[in-house]
Amino acid sequence: MSSSVSPLAPTNVPDMPAIAGVRLATAQAGIRYRGRTDVLLALFDEGTTAAGVFTKSKCPSAPVEWCRANLKSGKSAKNLARALVVNSGNANAFTGRTGREACKFTAQIASRAAKVKAGEIFLASTGVIGEPLNAKAFDGVMDGLVADAAPGRFLDAAKAIMTTDTFPKVATATAKIGNTKVTIAGIAKGAGMIAPDMATMLSFVFTDAAIAAPALQAMLKEGVAGTFNAVTIDGDTSTSDTLMLFATGKAGNPRIVRAADPKLKAFRKALNAVLANLAEQVARDGEGARKLVEITVEGAASNASARKIAMSIANSPLVKTAIAGEDANWGRVVMAVGKAGEPADRDKLSIWFGGIRVAHKGARDPSYDEAKVSEKMKEQVIPLKVALGMGKGRDRVLTCDLTKEYIAINGDYRS
Amino acid sequence: MSSSVSPLAPTNVPDMPAIAGVRLATAQAGIRYRGRTDVLLALFDEGTTAAGVFTKSKCPSAPVEWCRANLKSGKSAKNLARALVVNSGNANAFTGRTGREACKFTAQIASRAAKVKAGEIFLASTGVIGEPLNAKAFDGVMDGLVADAAPGRFLDAAKAIMTTDTFPKVATATAKIGNTKVTIAGIAKGAGMIAPDMATMLSFVFTDAAIAAPALQAMLKEGVAGTFNAVTIDGDTSTSDTLMLFATGKAGNPRIVRAADPKLKAFRKALNAVLANLAEQVARDGEGARKLVEITVEGAASNASARKIAMSIANSPLVKTAIAGEDANWGRVVMAVGKAGEPADRDKLSIWFGGIRVAHKGARDPSYDEAKVSEKMKEQVIPLKVALGMGKGRDRVLTCDLTKEYIAINGDYRS
Repeated sequence: MSSSVSPLAPTNVPDMPAIAGVRLATAQAGIRYRGRTDVLLALFDEGTTAAGVFTKSKCPSAPVEWCRANLKSGKSAKNLARALVVNSGNANAFTGRTGREACKFTAQIASRAAKVKAGEIFLASTGVIGEPLNAKAFDGVMDGLVADAAPGRFLDAAKAIMTTDTFPKVATATAKIGNTKVTIAGIAKGAGMIAPDMATMLSFVFTDAAIAAPALQAMLKEGVAGTFNAVTIDGDTSTSDTLMLFATGKAGNPRIVRAADPKLKAFRKALNAVLANLAEQVARDGEGARKLVEITVEGAASNASARKIAMSIANSPLVKTAIAGEDANWGRVVMAVGKAGEPADRDKLSIWFGGIRVAHKGARDPSYDEAKVSEKMKEQVIPLKVALGMGKGRDRVLTCDLTKEYIAINGDYRS
Repeated sequence: MSSSVSPLAPTNVPDMPAIAGVRLATAQAGIRYRGRTDVLLALFDEGTTAAGVFTKSKCPSAPVEWCRANLKSGKSAKNLARALVVNSGNANAFTGRTGREACKFTAQIASRAAKVKAGEIFLASTGVIGEPLNAKAFDGVMDGLVADAAPGRFLDAAKAIMTTDTFPKVATATAKIGNTKVTIAGIAKGAGMIAPDMATMLSFVFTDAAIAAPALQAMLKEGVAGTFNAVTIDGDTSTSDTLMLFATGKAGNPRIVRAADPKLKAFRKALNAVLANLAEQVARDGEGARKLVEITVEGAASNASARKIAMSIANSPLVKTAIAGEDANWGRVVMAVGKAGEPADRDKLSIWFGGIRVAHKGARDPSYDEAKVSEKMKEQVIPLKVALGMGKGRDRVLTCDLTKEYIAINGDYRS
């Protein structure tokens, strides 16, 4: 955990509401850190449905495999959840058979303490890869966690799952389903090893809405594309990326079965707002980040093409270091557009930094005022827009700059 | 240009031989730098054949387009060269119509001074992107360059094309074609914006062998795959990558027409050695590099799959920062294998750092001695091997570590 809070941290932390049917507790299991919490238990009332999206890594962590197995590929209407156990400090990834055993053992402890089935317990771990996770450490704290569990403790929960994060990430929203008010609360952790094609390292979202698991799964998959999957810190996809959504049904709305149900319109919007908010916080807490970069690509051959070009820009070390140096180096943006391999025509390209067009139709914009752009580059949030002039494809991704602090954090993390 | 020489610079610089039919001269045109040479002229005797491979960027520089046009796609037996003009300090990339005009103007000046056709003059530029290149600067030096041009000045030539390079890159080899000894001499510049799917930023290789242009082109394309295309510094593909090969025919061997001619065996080997040597020097001079990392992937589903996995490791900021921190963090290697999207099975994976197996069959190798690995990680050259156990695919790529110096160099380069 870094000693100083990211300058991009949100200035207002929302008051987090209780979600009926969700109780939370945290504890110090001593997995890796000293003097801070490192384990989170969430307990769900009977009938809570679950959905999840996970890393696309070919080498996923043991808890990811555990969750996938319990979710039965997200298609079953029987995806129910009674508990979630998350630890920080150790990712339980690339730990071979001992990793699978650590998952089984953790679920056994939680099952016995909370009196719920192991098949309805979800697990997530974040931290160092490749070190065996000592799941026995949970044995000493699990009964206490079950006894302590209480509603509304989302900020504590967000703190317990931090690794190199410099601030806890929470978000909330409300919506109506029919005439019933429902509430959504979410937490996330991010910081490094954050890249496209994933959920995020870890994020958990809770609602009291009554929604069947398949509909929940469909909405989550839909929502992740423009939020968590549109964030990149370093292009490195984690082995542990996990985003889960739990719905307790305690709000009392008539249960929704289909994702296409028009009654879900406001809920879907609220869910996406929570996901987008958490995803932006992940970008704002990128390791060593000093600037939040919002990359918009328009006029691409397709939306998918716009995404690839936006990600090529967002993952370019040369673009990111230039932004760290407060340099509107659009030449490097051209380079990143060019290397994406997507349809582009150099002589149709326009580029804006901070809303000021610096390049137009394949050359420097003769009218741009370098002093004004320099002022914009000093700000904390840098909008970077590229217009390709090829079609109607459009996309937006978030990233941060690449600073010496990223190197410092990652050059001596494990040892 | 950085102030201190890379610690990975070769300790021996070879004596560069003259190549009959090639004369070289350098000068200070004042394009961007002060107190150093920044323009190179190479003159070739009549009958010199040419081959080239260029950046795959969709936004190539104006000189890349110029060379492609003059090379007639490399298929014509009529690819002849009489001159090469290279400048450093300005890449003449994303400079719109003025960029094309700068190329035309440079070729006109060289054509008049050297009395050769513009269609047989090749151009390359390296340096800042997006700033107009003042080609008039060449006007004052071109007559002097033609008058001064002399054989064997490859080290001076390599110096004139440097940007953020910390040492000039030269290599040479000899071979026999039939009974005739032929000589190869090459120069390169690299440092940043170095990534797969390209030649390199700039490299030029010269030989006195008599080889028809199509055969030259075929051999160059073949040779680049395992050499320059197997090097990555930062995953950022330049708009200007150019590798050209010129053959004067002055050695007097019976002219070779087909690339498949068995008489080319030794020459091909020597050419590949020169390309590999220059490519390794590029990796050794990666911006901010303190360690050369040699990544070998074996047991992949195919050679192409091995290349993708090796590049995923080589371009991972987390792997590269760990190596900068002298940490044998094989967990991050697992992450990079997993994100490559190629066939892999976590539980069959083995990983070696410095020849010591640290992970085996999906978990930490119980027998590995951390102290011994730590010693290996202090060395300048770090061999990193991954065995996948999936098939017989194999590949090797070179990269360097990612240090704060990379950020320093690139965070304040243009301004």
